Amino acid sequence: MTGRPKGRRPGSSGAREQILQAARDTFAEVGYDRASMRLVASRAGVDPALIHHYFGTKEGLLGEALELPFDPHVVLAGITDDPDRAGFEIVRRVVGTAESSPAARTRLVGMLRTALAHESAAAMMRNVLATSVLRELERIVADETAPLRASLVGSHLAGLILGRYVLRIPALAEATVDQLAAAVGPAIQHYVNGPISTVP
Amino acid sequence: MTGRPKGRRPGSSGAREQILQAARDTFAEVGYDRASMRLVASRAGVDPALIHHYFGTKEGLLGEALELPFDPHVVLAGITDDPDRAGFEIVRRVVGTAESSPAARTRLVGMLRTALAHESAAAMMRNVLATSVLRELERIVADETAPLRASLVGSHLAGLILGRYVLRIPALAEATVDQLAAAVGPAIQHYVNGPISTVP
Repeated sequence: MTGRPKGRRPGSSGAREQILQAARDTFAEVGYDRASMRLVASRAGVDPALIHHYFGTKEGLLGEALELPFDPHVVLAGITDDPDRAGFEIVRRVVGTAESSPAARTRLVGMLRTALAHESAAAMMRNVLATSVLRELERIVADETAPLRASLVGSHLAGLILGRYVLRIPALAEATVDQLAAAVGPAIQHYVNGPISTVP
Repeated sequence: MTGRPKGRRPGSSGAREQILQAARDTFAEVGYDRASMRLVASRAGVDPALIHHYFGTKEGLLGEALELPFDPHVVLAGITDDPDRAGFEIVRRVVGTAESSPAARTRLVGMLRTALAHESAAAMMRNVLATSVLRELERIVADETAPLRASLVGSHLAGLILGRYVLRIPALAEATVDQLAAAVGPAIQHYVNGPISTVP
């Protein structure tokens, strides 16, 4: 239907990264539905045809854009060295990553919002959880409770990120990273290696 | 601008409730932005003018619709009787309420989605948390840590609800209410009366 307009078509991978960053910013700001290819293209300073060239559909673009703003394997590296400090360290590193730059924060929040609004993005979130987080946790607890443990760690961290950066609940927004790690650490620790099927 | 069309205008409070229910269903299904007054009216089987009559603006309608599908005072009643079982009971009752009917579940999920997407709704969520949840928790821990404790309980429960019903993470979606209460209870218990400023 549309021919190939003669816009900028740099072949470099720089343009690809530029489009991904523009897509993440746009998804975070206006949501997936309202983020047209044209809007992303304009933000990235490229021709919309270049987005189609690299990513095909808008869904393809979403898939690439929805990577975590950090590699869980890197963030969680060394956690198994001291399993009883794992809860504290997980919170400190994940919230610390969100605090490290406005871009990381925007990306993390955008990813969560998109996942909550769209089934295709939710499916990708489940995939991230089942592969990276679960794999890390299984180094500590490698039994049949591991998927539930990993899911509880993930959902608690998601609730914390949303409460701090989106809902901006005062007590969560005002706490320092270390205060949050001290408060939330034991709860995450419970999911890492605590008894999770005991009724009080 | 619009005159008063001669649609159905039942004066009963039944129509008011009918509109609120239609608004909650519509917000949950299509989101706040796309939920026009006309769409809500059509679903409720009333004239749009009746919505304006009862609620004024769309934001007014949102405010009324965004009540929790349960009264926290009722759900948390008696929690203080056995403070060390509070974590388990809070999870059992809140998730149990979500499970009690599809309408309650739709309403809870819709409320969270709306709050995450709109600042006015987020402000209302903060208000719900600061009044009802905090007030209940302060019966158990009445010191300066209470706001952080209440916020952590709220954000963890929100993450759990989103993970189970929206992201539908298998391990969370497949667990029974009692299994979830047993697994998550100790984490909530930690926020209720555990040490929340200790670094391991």
